Amino acid sequence: MGHGTNRVEDMASPNNGTTAPATANARETIVEIHSVCLPPKKTALQKLKKRFGDVFFPDDPLERFRNQTWRNRMILGLQSLFPIFTWGSQYDLKLLRSDVVSGLTIASLAIPQGISYAKLANLPPIVGLYSSFVPPLIYSVLGSSKHLAVGPVSIASLVMGSMLSESVSPTQDSILYLKLAFTSTFFAGLFQASLGLLRLGFVIDFLSKATLIGFTAGAAVIVSLQQLKGLLGIVHFTGKMQFIPVMSSVFSNRSEWSWETILMGLGFLAILLTTRHISMRKPKLFWISAASPLASVIGHLPKGLNPPSSNMLYFSGSHLALAIKTGIVTGILSLTEGIAVGRTFASLKNYQVNGNKEMMAIGFMNMAGSCTSCYVTTGSFSRSAVNYNAGAKTAVSNIVMASAVLVTLLFLMPLFYYTPNLILAAIILTAVIGLIDYQAAYKLWKVDKFDFFTCMCSFFGVLLVSVPLGLAIAVGVSVLKILLHVTRPNTLEFGNIQGTQIYQSVKRYREASRIPGFLILAVESPIYFANSTYLQERILRWIREEEARIKENNGSTLKCIILDMTAVSSIDTNGIEALFELRRRLEKQSLQLVLVNPVGSVMEKLHKSKIIESLGLSGLYLTVGEAVADLSSTWKAHGQP
Amino acid sequence: MGHGTNRVEDMASPNNGTTAPATANARETIVEIHSVCLPPKKTALQKLKKRFGDVFFPDDPLERFRNQTWRNRMILGLQSLFPIFTWGSQYDLKLLRSDVVSGLTIASLAIPQGISYAKLANLPPIVGLYSSFVPPLIYSVLGSSKHLAVGPVSIASLVMGSMLSESVSPTQDSILYLKLAFTSTFFAGLFQASLGLLRLGFVIDFLSKATLIGFTAGAAVIVSLQQLKGLLGIVHFTGKMQFIPVMSSVFSNRSEWSWETILMGLGFLAILLTTRHISMRKPKLFWISAASPLASVIGHLPKGLNPPSSNMLYFSGSHLALAIKTGIVTGILSLTEGIAVGRTFASLKNYQVNGNKEMMAIGFMNMAGSCTSCYVTTGSFSRSAVNYNAGAKTAVSNIVMASAVLVTLLFLMPLFYYTPNLILAAIILTAVIGLIDYQAAYKLWKVDKFDFFTCMCSFFGVLLVSVPLGLAIAVGVSVLKILLHVTRPNTLEFGNIQGTQIYQSVKRYREASRIPGFLILAVESPIYFANSTYLQERILRWIREEEARIKENNGSTLKCIILDMTAVSSIDTNGIEALFELRRRLEKQSLQLVLVNPVGSVMEKLHKSKIIESLGLSGLYLTVGEAVADLSSTWKAHGQP
Repeated sequence: MGHGTNRVEDMASPNNGTTAPATANARETIVEIHSVCLPPKKTALQKLKKRFGDVFFPDDPLERFRNQTWRNRMILGLQSLFPIFTWGSQYDLKLLRSDVVSGLTIASLAIPQGISYAKLANLPPIVGLYSSFVPPLIYSVLGSSKHLAVGPVSIASLVMGSMLSESVSPTQDSILYLKLAFTSTFFAGLFQASLGLLRLGFVIDFLSKATLIGFTAGAAVIVSLQQLKGLLGIVHFTGKMQFIPVMSSVFSNRSEWSWETILMGLGFLAILLTTRHISMRKPKLFWISAASPLASVIGHLPKGLNPPSSNMLYFSGSHLALAIKTGIVTGILSLTEGIAVGRTFASLKNYQVNGNKEMMAIGFMNMAGSCTSCYVTTGSFSRSAVNYNAGAKTAVSNIVMASAVLVTLLFLMPLFYYTPNLILAAIILTAVIGLIDYQAAYKLWKVDKFDFFTCMCSFFGVLLVSVPLGLAIAVGVSVLKILLHVTRPNTLEFGNIQGTQIYQSVKRYREASRIPGFLILAVESPIYFANSTYLQERILRWIREEEARIKENNGSTLKCIILDMTAVSSIDTNGIEALFELRRRLEKQSLQLVLVNPVGSVMEKLHKSKIIESLGLSGLYLTVGEAVADLSSTWKAHGQP
Repeated sequence: MGHGTNRVEDMASPNNGTTAPATANARETIVEIHSVCLPPKKTALQKLKKRFGDVFFPDDPLERFRNQTWRNRMILGLQSLFPIFTWGSQYDLKLLRSDVVSGLTIASLAIPQGISYAKLANLPPIVGLYSSFVPPLIYSVLGSSKHLAVGPVSIASLVMGSMLSESVSPTQDSILYLKLAFTSTFFAGLFQASLGLLRLGFVIDFLSKATLIGFTAGAAVIVSLQQLKGLLGIVHFTGKMQFIPVMSSVFSNRSEWSWETILMGLGFLAILLTTRHISMRKPKLFWISAASPLASVIGHLPKGLNPPSSNMLYFSGSHLALAIKTGIVTGILSLTEGIAVGRTFASLKNYQVNGNKEMMAIGFMNMAGSCTSCYVTTGSFSRSAVNYNAGAKTAVSNIVMASAVLVTLLFLMPLFYYTPNLILAAIILTAVIGLIDYQAAYKLWKVDKFDFFTCMCSFFGVLLVSVPLGLAIAVGVSVLKILLHVTRPNTLEFGNIQGTQIYQSVKRYREASRIPGFLILAVESPIYFANSTYLQERILRWIREEEARIKENNGSTLKCIILDMTAVSSIDTNGIEALFELRRRLEKQSLQLVLVNPVGSVMEKLHKSKIIESLGLSGLYLTVGEAVADLSSTWKAHGQP
């Protein structure tokens, strides 16, 4: 290595990751200098393994298996596949009592919700009940959350309804529509389970909260608009879902509006909204809002258990692409809701929910559901909250709920009669209006304008373009924000806070003052191909501006540029080349370039690319303070001012 | 504001961006504490303006116009539109002499290159000469580089050739092919000029060097394989471009191989490679390699200047999509080359090349070219290097070169006769083999494995899939790397280097030791929606691991988690929520959460979301050292160990 390497210590083994202070510093100086060391040496394979582990196994799932006998490992393995084995052995009567109470409570909510959500998805009401029977049973065996109440949910239902009915009419082609719904459910489950199996759980992280707020509100508006058909009594209504065609259809068919229907609809809507208002004020009275739709959703429904539907799945034909697309969109949306709800209640009771395991549980439950006449299900926020408040202790409450639904399916079905369109419309309207969370959107506006923008993109994308495209636009905007941030990173000029070793932004801290002869810059991002050119030009502009400032104030000449690399968490070959190029350009202007505190991985690459040697003896320091002190004393020793 | 705000000072105006040290610290402590201050207050509009400026005007193009009279501003504006006005007035005979010499030198290179590159694009050789006449003239007026030699280049030519001939045969449908080539050139120019006008120059930054190395090599292999037709004398050759169909076509037509052709071809290849070797060894003899293809490329060509071709552009029809796609791909590739070459030589002579202006110049030159029988042109690396070495001083050398090409077009055309396919094939092979830069690929492997992976993706993508898809795959992989880095950021445990205020990674610096009672974590990335869940869980895992370590060593209980936010360059609403949630969870475990040194924009959002108040009096410090000292002394005052 070159002459600059006395401050870069090479480690022989990972256990020897250290350096002695550079006591062998040849220059006459009283400054204590700490050398920057390389991280412990690792082979490319070790690094790949670590990186791989960080990406796919951040939870270190094998941790528990270490230092265990084979028998224990088998038991642990079984427990991690079927969490029921973990808590099953300690299950007692006291827990059962709590679970029965909460299970029956959520059943009273699940039956009316199942019926109206099925309507949202343009499916026969009975499918909503079927979906509240099989999936909860499967989840109770596979799921790791204790409080998640499983069943159909509003967003997934309305997305499925709007995506499928754009191509197939649920009234004219009802069999095909049902087939498509089950097939979509199958693909949703397959997609969810694969994400879990391949440990790609981070995919759902790309749906930010801002995106979801906007998306939900947009979907809710779309569904509300669809209900205008029933509420206004319009017969000839558009099959499209977007805002503009629906509104034009509403107003071009004004002759079909019937004031009797409108009056009745509004009256019913008022009752529903009042009961909802009561139950929101007094959570204990939640059953009022739950029961009021129950009292009205009375239709003629067949008696009996879920019929098998695996023969209705189809894996070829012209609508397959639609089914897959719908499956992926509803799958990712329901997964996001399920995982988020599971995490919320787990954190309230301070236990861990494993994201990847939950994905597999939800995925398998949907795949099984698609074969037993169920459509997409997941953990519902409203029902899980009721479950938690009613004192649920384990997933047994899901089993109790399923049993209650079973009884309903077997014996209580004849109680249900036909419900007029207008009442269903009012029920659905009440349900979806609650999904428009304008307060959350206002909070986004207050704290983070860009998040608000994402939210609006997602809202208007869904409303004006289409459901999957709206979602894609919002995710695209979120990713673009990350890329933009990486492409145009922040650089700050640092100054010293007098009497300390603290260096901070001179713009932000007035007590931070510039050091004559130095320009201290902090780069606040990794240096990548996407920003290396920009950073290089931005630094040169900093230097031009600094020199202009010095000229104006008759300050002392600029001699050294210190780059604080603390926040540069990564560098690639383009970034390294940019540093080389910067050094070369600065040399032409007789300016020295000094790097301060590069992080481990950056240091390693700088070392491999030999840039450290080319920077020379005083080109690398651990802190800005040490760099300034050491360089100043060197200059003094050479008789420079 | 809450009780924690004595360390968060609110600024009244941007000029008052400072705080006094927290002298009003109520606790009995000898530790000097510096308060963390908010950045100077700005309205949302000011922030948007700054962000907008950073993204679209990083070069601050209006800087020069400030404090100028209107007349001066007009002159400056004219100069910035047409750089020729900047250097034109100081142009003298001495400069002219240098430019004439270098212009004639590059003309001697441009004529044979123009002919063979046109052949690469499957275009008539004369188009290559036309393209060396009009575009250089336009560039000399608009361009800001002094050394860029403009004309057809190899990569753009071979990409255009391979993309267009996949759909249209250049021999059977030669008129349509020519039309498509001009239309593609028009769209390439339009795309380039728009990028410049909209100041979206950063788009080309997404083509990292690694991507380009792999892409160029892949494209070169594809073109080399195409030349096997001529070299082996095969008559029935596939129209496809990918590796597998071409190789199967070569070997299934073995009966058509003719040994005479092969022998002649190899002989000619040997001559060309030898001359290239000589000129690489002795750069002064570059004309040997330039002249040797000239001696052989002798075809029957029409005499006369560029005919107009605007009537050959077409903006409808079935091939329009292909023309646009080809235009965008060749446009971005040629732009990348042109800008990179311009920057290289500008940095050698220490002047600035303005990226956005260059894009407009190159774009307009291609749009004009498409109307005068030229195909895609840009600044060529090889010719610019020769230009620079021959002493070019200004863009006048391009005018001289164009004049030489003019003379050739007007008077020397009859000298050119028909050249056999096999000789052309050999010329092209020699040209493209030089584009495979295996040494650069090896260097990527050494320094950055992921960059090497990107390079391979781009190479095999082009070779096995298709040219635009290969490029898209490589860009996708590069972007994925950024996203992966953001999704799974690094967290480090810090310790104190004894006797200093320096805190560094305990894994990397053995002299850094943990402080009893504290867990100091540094987060090395912005906290975004894409990583907020991961970070929260990773931090909780750090705490579990630390507690296990403490239990093993009988250390003192963990009481405080310090998050060093120095490298957290940005935060969004999801990130803030994750911090809230983390604080809540730690509180349940009786652990304190302390944030250290949040950067300006992060501090602002933390303040707006009121998290600072919820963290309490000692929840925010400027340095890790001050946090540790202050909290320890507080604990001591309360009689804790």
